[in-house]
Amino acid sequence: MNQVIDLLQAHRSIRKFTETPVQQELLNTCIAAGQSAATSSFIQACTVIQVNDSNNRNALSEWAGNQQYVKAAPVFLVFCADMNRHKLSCEMHQAEMLSGFTEQFITATVDCALFAQNVAIAAESEGLGVVYIGGIRNKIDLVSQALELPDLTYPVFGMCIGYPDQDPEVKPRLPLEVVLKQDKYSDKNDADIIAEYDKTIKAYYQSRTGGQKDMTWSEQISGMLQKEARPHMLSFLKSRGFLHK
Amino acid sequence: MNQVIDLLQAHRSIRKFTETPVQQELLNTCIAAGQSAATSSFIQACTVIQVNDSNNRNALSEWAGNQQYVKAAPVFLVFCADMNRHKLSCEMHQAEMLSGFTEQFITATVDCALFAQNVAIAAESEGLGVVYIGGIRNKIDLVSQALELPDLTYPVFGMCIGYPDQDPEVKPRLPLEVVLKQDKYSDKNDADIIAEYDKTIKAYYQSRTGGQKDMTWSEQISGMLQKEARPHMLSFLKSRGFLHK
Repeated sequence: MNQVIDLLQAHRSIRKFTETPVQQELLNTCIAAGQSAATSSFIQACTVIQVNDSNNRNALSEWAGNQQYVKAAPVFLVFCADMNRHKLSCEMHQAEMLSGFTEQFITATVDCALFAQNVAIAAESEGLGVVYIGGIRNKIDLVSQALELPDLTYPVFGMCIGYPDQDPEVKPRLPLEVVLKQDKYSDKNDADIIAEYDKTIKAYYQSRTGGQKDMTWSEQISGMLQKEARPHMLSFLKSRGFLHK
Repeated sequence: MNQVIDLLQAHRSIRKFTETPVQQELLNTCIAAGQSAATSSFIQACTVIQVNDSNNRNALSEWAGNQQYVKAAPVFLVFCADMNRHKLSCEMHQAEMLSGFTEQFITATVDCALFAQNVAIAAESEGLGVVYIGGIRNKIDLVSQALELPDLTYPVFGMCIGYPDQDPEVKPRLPLEVVLKQDKYSDKNDADIIAEYDKTIKAYYQSRTGGQKDMTWSEQISGMLQKEARPHMLSFLKSRGFLHK
């Protein structure tokens, strides 16, 4: 293993930051590294909004489920899947854009995620810590309004960035054999392997919370999946021009 | 800038590989690095199928639009957004899974992309080259069938990996000010900046193709968006249990 792989494997979410600011030049370098990620057919469909305004930070923090670090982090970014830029390109050539395809939604969303992961790694390589904030999708309509996002653009997730003021353990992942399969998908042995992994996660939570959190991975997942998952998403996305066909 | 950021910024797709095989142990290390990426609420929703079988490789190559490197690359991976594993977890606890939410589709797709980007970076850090293959979505039904993917699982993209046998230039990205915005989205100056960037891309294509490809970025984008984008995607994804609500 080399130092890059060591860095990737050392990732854990950071939710507590020192007050040391992140220099804009360094942040710009991280964003440029984000741009260097692969992009589907060169569409470059990610736009990042850096949220500095404290009113918007407070609101975003509340909308994300009262996640204090959204307010407190030195940097908060919102990664948007953006096809407004492509509409603009069509207009530059008096062309009519065919939009609303699920395929376009996928490519723009994936573009955003590849971009963001490069930003995360660039930041971590400079000693910064990050946490992705999916919680902004709780109130995706209000977030979009506050950031003045146009149609054909949606906020996929946020990201807090700053210098870590905590040192959490790395969370153990599923055994490799569950996530890497040869030639065909088979889940024949997965329940047994997950049951074994459940013990690892239970021990991890107990050690991390001084015994307070007593839960396995499959319990956590099954608990989560008995609830509705942000049921407003489809109608919101349709209202912004996505997922019509 | 440090060496990690240098590596990220040096990315370009590699489509021609030497015959040197990629050791399985190294590939497993890259996959484990993929697992280390952030995962929404710890869902770990990415499954990778390593396609070795030459019949399937030939078929995938054809379905992806006759991309020869899908057949020829030492390694070909298919990254699947996988919520079958979560159904299994629910069954382990006699719980009924609520599925079909667009939100779940987004989290599983993003999980996959973050995972894959870590795999790409780990591979590149070891001197390997990669290219993402969105083309497998041309025939997403046949791909899913060939890999025996269950419901609640879909192939997001493929990836070729191997030692590079070419050294293409890095493709210049949009100027930073188009993709990074402060506080609010505004595209007020974007058309002008894109028009300037168009010259850079035109020069890039001309130099790369010895004058044969004469196209700007906005021309390429507007051309692409006058065509339908894989119009079969929504009905296919619905048939596998995604995007119902």
